[in-house]
Order: sequence, then C-alpha cells, then structure tokens
Amino acid sequence: MASTFGSLFRVTTFGESHGRAIGCIVDGCPARVPLAEGDLQPQLDRRRPGATALNTPRKETDTVSILSGVERGLTLGTPIGLSIPNADTRPGDYAEMETVPRPSHADFTYAEKYGLRARSGGGRASARETAARVAAGAVAEAMLAAFQPVEIVAWVEAVGDITAPRPDLETLTRAGVDATPVRCPDPAAADRMVKAIESARDTGDSLGGIVSCICRGVPPGWGEPVFDKLTARLAQAMMSIPATRGFEIGEGFAAARMTGSAHNDPFQARPGGGIRPASNHCGGIQGGISNGEPLFFRVAFKPVSTISKPQATVAFDGSPVTFEAKGRHDPCVLPRAVPVVEAMAALVLADAFLLQQTQRIPRPSRETP
Amino acid sequence: MASTFGSLFRVTTFGESHGRAIGCIVDGCPARVPLAEGDLQPQLDRRRPGATALNTPRKETDTVSILSGVERGLTLGTPIGLSIPNADTRPGDYAEMETVPRPSHADFTYAEKYGLRARSGGGRASARETAARVAAGAVAEAMLAAFQPVEIVAWVEAVGDITAPRPDLETLTRAGVDATPVRCPDPAAADRMVKAIESARDTGDSLGGIVSCICRGVPPGWGEPVFDKLTARLAQAMMSIPATRGFEIGEGFAAARMTGSAHNDPFQARPGGGIRPASNHCGGIQGGISNGEPLFFRVAFKPVSTISKPQATVAFDGSPVTFEAKGRHDPCVLPRAVPVVEAMAALVLADAFLLQQTQRIPRPSRETP
Amino acid sequence: MASTFGSLFRVTTFGESHGRAIGCIVDGCPARVPLAEGDLQPQLDRRRPGATALNTPRKETDTVSILSGVERGLTLGTPIGLSIPNADTRPGDYAEMETVPRPSHADFTYAEKYGLRARSGGGRASARETAARVAAGAVAEAMLAAFQPVEIVAWVEAVGDITAPRPDLETLTRAGVDATPVRCPDPAAADRMVKAIESARDTGDSLGGIVSCICRGVPPGWGEPVFDKLTARLAQAMMSIPATRGFEIGEGFAAARMTGSAHNDPFQARPGGGIRPASNHCGGIQGGISNGEPLFFRVAFKPVSTISKPQATVAFDGSPVTFEAKGRHDPCVLPRAVPVVEAMAALVLADAFLLQQTQRIPRPSRETP
Amino acid sequence: MASTFGSLFRVTTFGESHGRAIGCIVDGCPARVPLAEGDLQPQLDRRRPGATALNTPRKETDTVSILSGVERGLTLGTPIGLSIPNADTRPGDYAEMETVPRPSHADFTYAEKYGLRARSGGGRASARETAARVAAGAVAEAMLAAFQPVEIVAWVEAVGDITAPRPDLETLTRAGVDATPVRCPDPAAADRMVKAIESARDTGDSLGGIVSCICRGVPPGWGEPVFDKLTARLAQAMMSIPATRGFEIGEGFAAARMTGSAHNDPFQARPGGGIRPASNHCGGIQGGISNGEPLFFRVAFKPVSTISKPQATVAFDGSPVTFEAKGRHDPCVLPRAVPVVEAMAALVLADAFLLQQTQRIPRPSRETP
Repeated sequence: MASTFGSLFRVTTFGESHGRAIGCIVDGCPARVPLAEGDLQPQLDRRRPGATALNTPRKETDTVSILSGVERGLTLGTPIGLSIPNADTRPGDYAEMETVPRPSHADFTYAEKYGLRARSGGGRASARETAARVAAGAVAEAMLAAFQPVEIVAWVEAVGDITAPRPDLETLTRAGVDATPVRCPDPAAADRMVKAIESARDTGDSLGGIVSCICRGVPPGWGEPVFDKLTARLAQAMMSIPATRGFEIGEGFAAARMTGSAHNDPFQARPGGGIRPASNHCGGIQGGISNGEPLFFRVAFKPVSTISKPQATVAFDGSPVTFEAKGRHDPCVLPRAVPVVEAMAALVLADAFLLQQTQRIPRPSRETP
Repeated sequence: MASTFGSLFRVTTFGESHGRAIGCIVDGCPARVPLAEGDLQPQLDRRRPGATALNTPRKETDTVSILSGVERGLTLGTPIGLSIPNADTRPGDYAEMETVPRPSHADFTYAEKYGLRARSGGGRASARETAARVAAGAVAEAMLAAFQPVEIVAWVEAVGDITAPRPDLETLTRAGVDATPVRCPDPAAADRMVKAIESARDTGDSLGGIVSCICRGVPPGWGEPVFDKLTARLAQAMMSIPATRGFEIGEGFAAARMTGSAHNDPFQARPGGGIRPASNHCGGIQGGISNGEPLFFRVAFKPVSTISKPQATVAFDGSPVTFEAKGRHDPCVLPRAVPVVEAMAALVLADAFLLQQTQRIPRPSRETP
Repeated sequence: MASTFGSLFRVTTFGESHGRAIGCIVDGCPARVPLAEGDLQPQLDRRRPGATALNTPRKETDTVSILSGVERGLTLGTPIGLSIPNADTRPGDYAEMETVPRPSHADFTYAEKYGLRARSGGGRASARETAARVAAGAVAEAMLAAFQPVEIVAWVEAVGDITAPRPDLETLTRAGVDATPVRCPDPAAADRMVKAIESARDTGDSLGGIVSCICRGVPPGWGEPVFDKLTARLAQAMMSIPATRGFEIGEGFAAARMTGSAHNDPFQARPGGGIRPASNHCGGIQGGISNGEPLFFRVAFKPVSTISKPQATVAFDGSPVTFEAKGRHDPCVLPRAVPVVEAMAALVLADAFLLQQTQRIPRPSRETP
Repeated sequence: MASTFGSLFRVTTFGESHGRAIGCIVDGCPARVPLAEGDLQPQLDRRRPGATALNTPRKETDTVSILSGVERGLTLGTPIGLSIPNADTRPGDYAEMETVPRPSHADFTYAEKYGLRARSGGGRASARETAARVAAGAVAEAMLAAFQPVEIVAWVEAVGDITAPRPDLETLTRAGVDATPVRCPDPAAADRMVKAIESARDTGDSLGGIVSCICRGVPPGWGEPVFDKLTARLAQAMMSIPATRGFEIGEGFAAARMTGSAHNDPFQARPGGGIRPASNHCGGIQGGISNGEPLFFRVAFKPVSTISKPQATVAFDGSPVTFEAKGRHDPCVLPRAVPVVEAMAALVLADAFLLQQTQRIPRPSRETP
C-alpha cells in the first residue's frame, strides 16, 4: 500500500535501494503532452548522488527510460512506465543491519511492521526511492507546461544553524539556485553552509536544514475543500519525503503569534479588472484553495541519521553494540532534497489542475445559471 | 471531491455551516465494536460553540444521531451514518459576503473555484464542518478502544505570544487539559491566555496559537512507507483543519538545527525482552512507521480571519469598502481546536491500525518462513 | 468498505432496512447544476414499495431531503447529503432470522463475515438500500442533463419464462415503459407477466427475470482502458444490485456463437462529416470506450429469495426447521428494479463524463501538437 | 486512469503492445510470502502467443523479471515491480490503422477519446496488456497459497456453437484443462473445437466462445456489501478483459427463468458442526459475500475482431476502403483467455481476503461482545 500518490494524476512507485531497478507508473496524464526522456533527465541529474564532494560517493547515472505511454514525442493518455536501473549497488555494505538496527533509521520499524529484516540498504526507506518521484514530478511539470505553466523553484534556506536571507521570490530561478553547490541562492550563506557540511563530514556527524519552495503561476481555484485542501496535500507530499520533520505555509508557525488584523490579506482591485489579495501572508492558499498568489512553503529536514561517529546502541537481540556506519551517505541531504521537494509540489499541482477541470466544463448554450 | 478521508477506516462528510444538517458516513469500522451516541457526544460537547465567554455566542447543542450501522450497542460492520442538525442558523448574517469577499476567508477562492458565491456563512469552509470530523473521530477512538487502546491528548500550548511550558507527557489527560477554559494544562499560562483572548475580543481583533498532541499506546509497525507515511498522513490530517498553517513532529523545525549525533535515537534493551528507542527525538515515527514510543506533534493555527476591526478591502467588483465582520465568531479557536486535532489523529491511527492487520495474518501451521 | 461508488462522481451510501434512515452523500458533482428535491422524487417514486398490488405491501413514501450542497436551486460543488427516513419499519417481523438463516438470503454470509447476526430485516443486504442509489442516480442524471444530456431507459424484458419482443430502441421512453404495471413496454407480454407474478404470489413462490437498458446520447470517448472499461464499470454497477446473476452487453452471450465477420461493426461515413459504426453488435462500447452509438445491455435477476412456501432447511445451530417467510416482500422485483438499473447506469456515465474532462482541456494558443 | 485494480491487493499495469516493455506494480502483498520468478512464469507460459498452431505466430517468450519487493525468496511487503520485455514487435504491421480504424477494434474509440491515433498495434487495447495481469495474478495466487489456499481453474466451455458438457467441478485441474490444445477438458468437444478454429482460420474468419471458471476453497465471509459485492468485483474483473461480452454467476441468466422455490439454496447441517448450503444455485456468493461453496461463473467472449476476410468499411476521413487485416492474430482467443480469467479471479480473491482481515482482529481478552 501507500506506493500511490494522487487521485487523477497518479504515480505508483516501486523499488528498493539495492534491487535491480526503481521506477514508477504515471497514470492519468492526458494525451498529446509533449514528452521525452530529455524532459525528465535534468531533474534526475540534480538529485542523483555523486555530483559533488558534498554528496555520497555512490555513483548512479540515474538514466531514466520511458517504457510506455509515449509515441512520437507525445503522451498517449495511457500509463507512462518509467524505469531507472540501480547500477552501483553494494548490498554487502549493509550486512550489519540484519543484526543491528541503525539508530533513527527505519530498520527497527520495518522489522516490527513486516516481521522480517531486509538486507538491502534501507530498502524501501532509502532516499533512493525519491528518484522515482523526481521522474514522475518531471512528467507532471511537462503536463502543466502544456496546459497551465507553473514555475516551481525550491532552494536551501538553512543548513544547521545557518539561515540565508530570503531571496527575491518573484525572480528566483532554478539556475540561480544551482549557482552554489548547496543550492542556496545567497552566495555568502552558501559558503558558510559548505563549510559547515564539510566540517560535519570531517567529524563524522551530519546536519539538517530547511528547504523553501515557491510556486508561481498557480491560478485561483485549485485545491479541494476539507480533507484534500491544497495545504493538506502539500503537507502530505512534503512529509512523505524521507527525513522531513515539519511543514509550514505562508507565515507558518509565526502566524500563531500574529493578530488577525496583522495576518489578514485584504483584497485590492486588479488594474485590468477583477480583484486579488493585496498581501500574501497565507502563502497563496485560502480555505484550502489557491488564490492566484504564489504558493510559499517551507520543509524542515532532520540531520542525516547515518553518521560515522560511534553510537552506543543495542542489537536486535538487546546486546550492547557500538555502531559506526559504513555505507555511503551524505552528511547533509538538503541540496539533493531540492528537486525532490519540487517534484512533490509538481505532483500535487498536476493533480489539483486535473481535478479542477470538472469545474470548467463548457455547457450547452441554452444553459446559463 | 475530497470529502473522504482514510483508506480502510473511512469517513465521508457533508454539510454547510447554515444548511439543514451536517454529518458523515463512517465506513470500514469492524463489526462488534461497542458504540452508542453517548460515546460520541462528549467530544462534540468539547468542540461545540457557546460553551464559554471565550467562544462564539452561536448556540448549537450539536446533538449527534446514529442513523445506521449500530444495533443493540454493537457496530454491524456496515456504514455508520451520523447526523448533527444545524439549529441556530442565521444566513442573513452573511448577506454581505455575496458582494464582498471577507479578507483571508475562502469566499474569494470558492467563488473562483466554483463560479458562484454561496450565501451561507462560510458554507463548506466554515469550521462548523469539523463537528462531523469530531463525531467520526469518536467512532475511531471507540474502535481503537476495542482492539488496541490508544490515548490521544491534545492541548493548547500557545496563544499568540504566550507559550506554556511542556506538561508531563506521560500523565497528561483530557481532564487535566479541560481544567482551564483555554485547555492549557498550565494554570499560570492559561490565565495569561484568557486575558490575551479577552483583550483581543475587546479590541475587535483575534489570536492564533499552537495545539500540541500526544498519542500514547501506539504499538510499533503502524504507518505505510513512502506516500502514506504516518507522518505524512498526520500532516495531511492536521493541515486539513481550517486555519492551520504548520505541522511538525518530534523536534520538528528545531531538528533542522541539530546534528545527527544529537538528534539520533539509539536503541536500548527492554527489561522484559526486546528493544526500544532510548530517546524520542523523532516523535514516535521512523521511516513513516511508528516505533512504539508516544507520537508527539504540534499544529500551528493562524489568528481567526473574522475580526470586527474595520478592514480596508474591495468588493468582488473591485470597489473599495471598509469591511467590519458581523456574524458570530471566536476571537481565538485554539480551545475548540483541541478535540478536532484529537479527532483527526484518531482517524489517522484507526486507519493505520486496520491497514496493519494485513501484516498480522495467521498462517497455516506448515508455513514458517 | 464498499459503500462508495465512483471515482470523480462519487456516491457513498448508508442505512439498514429497518434503521432510522437511509441515505447517501454525493460528492464530486460540479457547481451550478440546477437541482431540487423535485428532480429526485420521481425516480424514487418509481422504485418505492407499495405502489401496486404486485409489490410488497410495505408502505414507504421515500421522501428524500437534500441536507447540503444545494443553495437557491443550484449545486455548490460541495457534497450533497441526501436522507430518506425509514417510516414503516417492523423489526419484529424478522426476529426469526436471528436463529434461522433465510435460504438464499445474506443472513448466513453476513453472520460469517461479521461474526454477529443483525436483527434488522436484511439490514444492509436489503433491497431497501437501493433507494439511496436511486436518489444518487437522479443527481447524476441532473448533472448530465446540464452538460451532456443522456437518455437512459430500462424496461422489463422478461419475467420468468415470458420474454417480450424487443421494443423500438430509438423511441422507447420511461413513460412508455410505465404504461404497464410490470414496466414491460409490450402490452401483450406485460399482461402475461402480470398473470405470472400473481400466480407466483398466490402459490407462495417468486419469479426472476431480465431488465434491459438503453442509453442514448453518450458521445464517443467515455470510459477508461483496462480495468475501468465502461463495460467493466457497468458490469460492476449492475452486478452490485441485489439479486442480479448476469450481465451482458451488445450481443452478449450470443456473441460467443457468432463469427467475426458477422459480429464486426464496420464504419460508414456520417452525412455531416466524420464516421460512425454502421452496425451496433457491440452495444456502443469498443475497447471499453463508448463509440457514440447507444449503449445496450441486459441484467438477469434471480427469483426473489423470500417465498412463503415452506422450505426444509436448518437453523444456525444445525437443527432442522421448516421455514416459511413472513415479512413483506415482492413476488417479483423486476418492475421496481427498472429505476435502480437506470440509476446505476447514470452513476457510471456521470463518472465517465467527468473523467473524460481531463482529455478535453483547452490549451494555450501557441501549443498545437 | 484505470490502470489500477484492487483496494488492498492492488495492481497497476503499464505498457502498449509494441512499446519497449509491459509490466506492473503489485502493491499490498504482505511480507514473508514465498515468491520467485518461477512462480509467475507458468501462467505466463500458458498465456503467451505462439504456443500452438492455433495461436498467433507472434513469438514472445514473455519472460518476467521481478525488479523489487522480493529478497531471498520472500516478499518484503513493499511493491513488487514486474517487467516483461516486448521482443517481437513489428509496428510497421499496423501502419494502416493510422488512416483506417479497424472494424470492432478500439482504434476509433481511442482516437475519439485521446485526440490522436497511436501507431502501435492496438496499443493499450491489445490483448498483450493481459500478460501483466497474468503475472500479477500469479503473485495473488502465491499470496493466497501462503495464507488461505484457493484453487482457481478456468476452462473453455464453448467455441462458437460447440459447447462441451460440464466437467466434474470438484476434481477439475489445470493439468486436466491443458490436456487438450483448446483447454477444453472434454476431449471429444475439444476435437471439434480445434477443427472449428482451423476452419475459421482457413476462411479468414474468427470465433468467440465461453470460458467457465471454478474457485474452490474460498471460505465464507469474503466480499463486501453493496458496491463491492464479490459478484460485482468479479463482473468488473472479467468484463475488463478484452473481447468479453457477458458475465454470469451460478445459474446466471437461466436463474431469470426459475422460481424461487427451485433456485433457493436451503441450508443443511455440516457433519463436523456448523451449517452449509445444501445446493449451490447461487455460485458460491450470497448478498455479495462468499458462502463457503465453490464460486462458479462464466464469461462470454466475442469472436476476434481481426479477420483476414475483406471488410467494407471507411477510413477516418470517410472514404470507402476494403480492409483486410495483416498483423498476427489468433482466430480464437479462448484457449489463451483461460489463464487471464484465472488471474483476474485471483486478483479479486486476494483483495477480498485482505479486506476480510479487518473483521478477524484478535481482541484484548476482557472484551467479549
């Protein structure tokens, strides 16, 4: 269960970290959307390991293949099968977790849930699973581009206790974000983040941080009332990413300290007609439905659980052990989390866009309620 | 769409703030669970308006009727229809919103989404909708009580800039929470919160705050990997409550500033055998699956959008207006949000419990993998 | 579970035969569809018991109330709560089924599934549950009428071994069907059916039969490939009606005896341009997708299980009993099944219509694949 | 949409007839089920083309690979990715369908639905899609074998106007069915069927027929009331198989002609205690829920649409053409449909089995309603 996300634009993923392949099926993408593997690879390249010295040395090219659903460069309306081979697997690296559950990993909870201990590198709980999400998110972005272009840009706002100043949200681009190796658009903060990550790596420790995200171009009316509010779907999407610990939108937790007169977003006339909110404390969503302003939200990531510092813990059988992680892991996942956050946002928005089509149905001319 | 929550323990709600009734259908509750209207009413009473001077003067008894699915005090396994009449409706109070979208309400986004302006007091976006959730949540708690008792206790941790010290999470009870009118178990902080709310009401303004929640007794193994992680489902559930702006679990956003060696939860032997985490920075969930420790999460609420202070805004036609809310509303929803948070947590846990049954299937004796 | 039908146009029902009320929530109906209780009552009146001497003497007015989702005669886009009170309940009539499972009823299987024996007249398995479907189906028809009018007409083709000649499928109307008390548009066959039903009733026995259905005005393109083929959804819908035993479409089982050259539907040019099938052996659906021709399908109903003839059977405890049904039941449900078949067809088509909207999305002008 | 089947045991398929691969993701299979590729291949071998002179000469080995979800011969509880390469594709064979919609194929309806004409050999509507179902069905059978063994045996009952006598339903095996090349366990009827198929092939025509199926070992209590009755799910499952035209269960359409006193299944005491139906007119399902007797149902298949006889039809542009199929197709799909019917039955039963686990939950000892 739980490997499917979305109601109309729907992705189902498969794959363990160290099996033959990972991948997904994207169902519900309308026909006649221009799509090629070249549309998917750039975001996969942004996520894949081994890109910089800050990342895990695991080498994966993460080359995605479209197995179905596309012909002559256009989607067919049928399910799009996507596959990414696992090339650089070393299951032997993870032999220890059969007897010792790694602290703050999912080894213990998976064993409790499923009644067995999987050998393979975190298996389904590994962040490698997010590669399939990124591929699916790129399909979502291609679909939105065909009908209702939306710009989704995430960036690293904080690493550990280093917080960058907020960039100009109207002009920030993915290229601007990628200008620094930590994907923080502020060069000075980025420098300090790099140093902090290197320092954590050198001491065998790890760091967490915050990814922020802006979605420009979302028209008013997306999202569903009650349980599938756009806020709720974004929250689920983000909190389903490994290592996330918090989600907030607009003013977020700071809103709890504001008065209504300070937090409210009154309306103003739009020059060309119509109205729009005069401020955006809400982060682009009111009553669970987009209001036409940019969506703005933040996602907190805990520090990476895998550290090479020795940890005093116990084995599955209760015997004391000193655990020192081997494997290959990032001291800080934040830079690689950026395209994952974007992908999940794209999946939420693609689904909301399709759902909203049922409110935009042309009627026979006689009918004018 | 979007009026259904859950995959096995599933609630579908209906009802506008000022229609004839609100209610829900709870489907998927197993048979033979003891259930009566008396099991549902207490949480509804905690949520209903008019209880104290701090609340909206709208008078609703919120008397719930079980229409189906229960016979002789036991559930039948069939859908449980629940209905709550709307007694004290005053649709006339809301006439103005047909021409003026209330700032930071859903009037504008609903109009954009659906292409019409509903007359009725916030309609589906009203917090009145949460009464149906509370009724359904009480069914979920009754179901869990029959099979796997779980204690869910939420409380008001902060109102505006007043934050209460953390209570003893092992002993906190709903009765302890209800000991103060703001549902903050710390009497001193509660006093200050009451004063702050009264002050906000007197100045025609409103306040937000934070509800915290603890769930004790959740065994290891609940939750699904990937998109339906228990964290993700809780996040969706909480962020689907009106006025929520943020969700965090365990150390939450503070985890972003911690190192892995400080945040990790190593394991220890359990006296009677088996192992358990020695600390609970994660808030009871690892890899999206419960680890047997108490769940702990926090939910941020924005200040109430309805304020009687005059607001400079525009009508739907763009003409400037000074808006002063009439209607009847709370200056601070936090105390009434407590049972809503508990209800949504109960719905998430009831669903996770049922889903986990498919991993606990007895096997023919010959089979021993 | 299982009380929800449809993916976008979605109905969730509740209610036992002898509880307080039955009803449903219709979610996913777009906003601004003209709807009033008067649009729902006619089909409920066609289904309700007690209408003629051929029916059960149970008296139910089946008066439906719209509890939410409609304001000033238009749908709001929010869930539509529908409630029908159970007026003439006599739970005492069914006391015997606590000890004796009625032959060919669901008493035994429900007891096996749920581990208890419900007292109340068939409970959820009673055909009374179909009243909620009929109400929901009428909403579906109102929705289709607003956007894409479809004419759905079912009729009784056979009762026991009496089979009526096929009527003119292009002109048949519900009024024509209702011209005879058995809802068979052929007066001569209808006379014989009435006599056969009266004879069955007089001998304490019961009859089955066949309901046929035509859906005119379905445009090409509705239905989804693979598991949700329009044929598959219609089959599920019809076989979910109590007492159904078979479903066939187009030539149905007779197609198994035909050659491809006889069964194939070649195409012809349409006078105004475009093409269409020149024949309709397939019943309007090819590859699971509508082809623009009328849908035609047939549904087989078994004879009513409740008969007053004595039956040699055993009690739950295995002791032999001679069972003679008391209660109040129809000797033949076929006439009352007609609006139920129409309702389920309407629900399938409403859902297919909404799903197809995602293939009809207007694009920015620059985009012309 | 529509590429997913099942609610707990859930399969999502992908793949066109002439793309790179077809496959599926099976989600919801519990952990610790013994599973290997060797468990899947036998049913795929029964379905694959090219096995006998009666089949299409297309050569596909249909070798299935398990990409994830299995480790050391046991399922992990995580999604099982299955892939089957398309080896012998000849898209050129299907060039004509870009201009001429093949009579009774889905070319026309897909073009109407999706707004484009796919080049690739029937694409998603091709019966090749069913290979993924057969692989998934084999996983379902492996899962059932681990917990609740069920024997599912389908056979060819009729080809064209040749109908075989009913075999002994208690002893029929797949080996017995495979004893003849047409998978009809009656050798005499099988001989006549072979001759009829050869004759159809020689005249460039095609034949339909009927597949019957028995499921032994299903305990009482499987299936859900109302919309997901076991009958309804089986009907959907079977009518989702390409070329199906009808479904019936138990006495099926013949039940429509029976009286209640003849069709009813009274109960009898079971020697070891408990009760069971004394007859099985209902085909093992009452009120949508299994009653412990074998399930018995029949599925009607239309004759293959692809015939080499010339057909007078029109092109998409309305111009008259004489169409003679090239491509490679079976004159009769019935023998190859046998494992597909079995697979779909297995998927329905696996899902019903898992859903029923929520009614079998052990309770704390104090609780005894």
